[in-house]
Amino acid sequence: MQNAISPTRAENYPEWYQQIIQAANLAENSPVRGCMVINPWGYAIWENMQRYLDDRFKETGHMNAYFPLLIPLSFLEKEAEHVAGFAKECAVVTHHRLEADPKGGLRPAGELEEPYVIRPTSETIIGTQFSKWVQSYRDLPLLINQWANVMRWEMRTRMFLRTSEFLWQEGHTAHATAQEAKEETLKMLDVYSDFAQNVLAMPVIKGEKTADERFPGADNTYTIEAMMQDKKALQSGTSHFLGQNFSRSFNIRFSSRDAQMEYAWTTSWGVSTRMIGGLIMTHSDDDGLVLPPRIAPLHVMIIPIYRNEEEQTNVLAYCKQLRDTLIQKQYHGQPLRVQVNEREQNGGEKNWDAIKKGIPVRLEIGPRDMAKDCVFMGRRDRAPKDKQSLSRADFIEQILDILTQMQDGLFKKAVAFRDENVHIIESEAAFKQFFSGKEDDNYAPGFAKCYTVHPESIQPLLKELKITARCIPLDNPDVEGQCIFTGEKTSQQVIFAKAY
Amino acid sequence: MQNAISPTRAENYPEWYQQIIQAANLAENSPVRGCMVINPWGYAIWENMQRYLDDRFKETGHMNAYFPLLIPLSFLEKEAEHVAGFAKECAVVTHHRLEADPKGGLRPAGELEEPYVIRPTSETIIGTQFSKWVQSYRDLPLLINQWANVMRWEMRTRMFLRTSEFLWQEGHTAHATAQEAKEETLKMLDVYSDFAQNVLAMPVIKGEKTADERFPGADNTYTIEAMMQDKKALQSGTSHFLGQNFSRSFNIRFSSRDAQMEYAWTTSWGVSTRMIGGLIMTHSDDDGLVLPPRIAPLHVMIIPIYRNEEEQTNVLAYCKQLRDTLIQKQYHGQPLRVQVNEREQNGGEKNWDAIKKGIPVRLEIGPRDMAKDCVFMGRRDRAPKDKQSLSRADFIEQILDILTQMQDGLFKKAVAFRDENVHIIESEAAFKQFFSGKEDDNYAPGFAKCYTVHPESIQPLLKELKITARCIPLDNPDVEGQCIFTGEKTSQQVIFAKAY
Repeated sequence: MQNAISPTRAENYPEWYQQIIQAANLAENSPVRGCMVINPWGYAIWENMQRYLDDRFKETGHMNAYFPLLIPLSFLEKEAEHVAGFAKECAVVTHHRLEADPKGGLRPAGELEEPYVIRPTSETIIGTQFSKWVQSYRDLPLLINQWANVMRWEMRTRMFLRTSEFLWQEGHTAHATAQEAKEETLKMLDVYSDFAQNVLAMPVIKGEKTADERFPGADNTYTIEAMMQDKKALQSGTSHFLGQNFSRSFNIRFSSRDAQMEYAWTTSWGVSTRMIGGLIMTHSDDDGLVLPPRIAPLHVMIIPIYRNEEEQTNVLAYCKQLRDTLIQKQYHGQPLRVQVNEREQNGGEKNWDAIKKGIPVRLEIGPRDMAKDCVFMGRRDRAPKDKQSLSRADFIEQILDILTQMQDGLFKKAVAFRDENVHIIESEAAFKQFFSGKEDDNYAPGFAKCYTVHPESIQPLLKELKITARCIPLDNPDVEGQCIFTGEKTSQQVIFAKAY
Repeated sequence: MQNAISPTRAENYPEWYQQIIQAANLAENSPVRGCMVINPWGYAIWENMQRYLDDRFKETGHMNAYFPLLIPLSFLEKEAEHVAGFAKECAVVTHHRLEADPKGGLRPAGELEEPYVIRPTSETIIGTQFSKWVQSYRDLPLLINQWANVMRWEMRTRMFLRTSEFLWQEGHTAHATAQEAKEETLKMLDVYSDFAQNVLAMPVIKGEKTADERFPGADNTYTIEAMMQDKKALQSGTSHFLGQNFSRSFNIRFSSRDAQMEYAWTTSWGVSTRMIGGLIMTHSDDDGLVLPPRIAPLHVMIIPIYRNEEEQTNVLAYCKQLRDTLIQKQYHGQPLRVQVNEREQNGGEKNWDAIKKGIPVRLEIGPRDMAKDCVFMGRRDRAPKDKQSLSRADFIEQILDILTQMQDGLFKKAVAFRDENVHIIESEAAFKQFFSGKEDDNYAPGFAKCYTVHPESIQPLLKELKITARCIPLDNPDVEGQCIFTGEKTSQQVIFAKAY
């Protein structure tokens, strides 16, 4: 059978990814270099992500606030590693008005005394405010989150995965002790991991980044790493223990219970619209997007089938009544999301539209179904033509179970795929062999997990193999082995992979 | 009695406004010129505004999407009036990285071929996308909304009311007919007016802007105008009928049912964080912020009173139990928002903190109240010392009614104040007299409503009196009168005022 998406994953994975986005109308390129437009269907997924995460942030005591988009150049310079990490990709504002250009059109005018950078991340500007907010141990912990757009001028962009502007949340917290700040860092990593696995059905490995891969200015960076269907890694969220680096640069000090002036310990953590890219590449197939029910903007699309106006009137009334019944049901604490597709299209077009958009369940209802009080159901986790007739009553009774099955099924399938493709590698030769199968840039063999003492010392090899150290998994068993590169005894295992 | 805010409204209104913001910790100035930091309490108010409005936008068929922050200069130039309106206040991005400056520090590098402007509003970039999305009458109406930050480089800024960066929503829609687009424009004005009056308890006058005051590029601009306690006007939201101006500039065309190519009719409409300024200046008093319950981030603050650890334990347990009971209640479809203030402060400090933050109801509960199973209640619409003891059971039974009373009371009070200060002016001499009472820039006598045929022809007078035409009210009665400036017969009445 012909697939709806061409090329397929096997034929050309990167192009398949672009086609999935286009077929589901998630986003599109814009006339602004490296920036995308997030279309309504893509944005609705982001809104669901936001709602879930925002609730978790508030449950864990965080409050939202908003800080300026622009950062004075001098602020960025205060933390040396930090500015080095971002200087090469900063959009710089240098003027504050436009004037007529004698050559025609307009040109920048009103040069600023000090240029501003559009925030690539907000540690510096938020640190500056924290230094005012934190005076006493009673002001701690300070638990703040910001939902915002940020900009990093990327040379090679790919929708959702790497765009010059993206949307994200950035948590920023300050604590009285290193211990508390470390706990916060790991707590938020857990929130991310829980979200990825239980809502996006995207299995992730929680781990610590190796020194080379840390956030500029962090003491420790933690990550959740997911495996895409092309076996590449996607860093899907990070949480940083910043030590006292930013509190020293921005003078975030407090008087302790013993009336001593101390520097606060800070953290930051973020996930972005990149997660949508991960979601796409974890579940989608050669017919289009596949959405786990918990994140899907719509759970059920009802497709009325009719040949004339009389049928249309009757069928539409029946469909809307069914919708009204279904939205009374609660799925994970929210009303079931159901729509009747009333557009001027034929049933086949509507059916394929729902498939390509990844809507978990679609119901075709025509006069004959109506007469039998039945619905003709297609599930996104089955083949497009594999549909079944169910009585309306049975469907209403079963819909919540069906969604739960689909959610669980997608997660299990993704876990199985990931687990199949994590390989224990036991020698340097095997390591080179594993990663040098093909010349193709898009080829990735999976994750290699191996005992490694000094991942930073094998940079040239990693570069040659076009891979990176993804993380030191937090659940590494405390079992000693031999470093495959140096032969040293160690219990540290590291995951390496080709990555987005 | 001493007031908590100094100066009072009567002493120095603009400074009182700043002090209210500081006392309630709503926002603060940032190191970035003209940009504010929105602190958690201020941002929580914005989140409530967003939630309410977003629900209304979705109920009326709109979908959210996201468009790039940056706009190519050439796009802005396509609509002549539009660019003329914004050219003087644009933040311009000219470079895309930083490099070491031989003189020390960093400097902009990587000059862009075409500069970008940070969006002051998004008609041009959204229009460009709409031209791709709209092909057939079947694609219409296209009903899109965006939540975003925008930037207008203002020379004189004031927190919430006029800041260089602000947060807002901008609706953008395209329609097949002028009639439909006009209906949309007025429908969204109604959503704004309903929100302002029923949620913010802020009375507004719906009206059309005069030609001079239109949005750059609009055929008609509609507004909701509110009166602040200093009798100045605040434009609190606008909705624009853009005719075919932007669809011609950006080529938004569709094939009609008769297979003719036609230009679409577009609208745009927005409200911003400015509304928080309006909210502050409508209700607050000389003790701090006053929040109508429907928009308040917290409805009830419970203040435990104790002198030792044993009392603390008992009182806290009692307070938390009461909180848990209260949050079971629903106020306007959402759980009652209740917090126990557990900070290390004394009861008096906590009490004043709740007053200055505008929390509708505060409950002081100490061992003696507990023994009687009573709460000691203060209401924000009464004097700080005017508190009453109520049995716990009575309070639980009455709280929803109390909030409803407060909401209604605040609205009625604001309507009465506004109505007292709208004056019918019947001659040019009386008009001049009305507006020239004092030399003080902060002096405003209220709104003048008068028959006026050509408000644009009296610009020099308006400038001299430092006032503007605020709007032509939509509810003008169809009664003829005489233009106070020209003597012509007209049924058009216009409201003039000093404005923010």
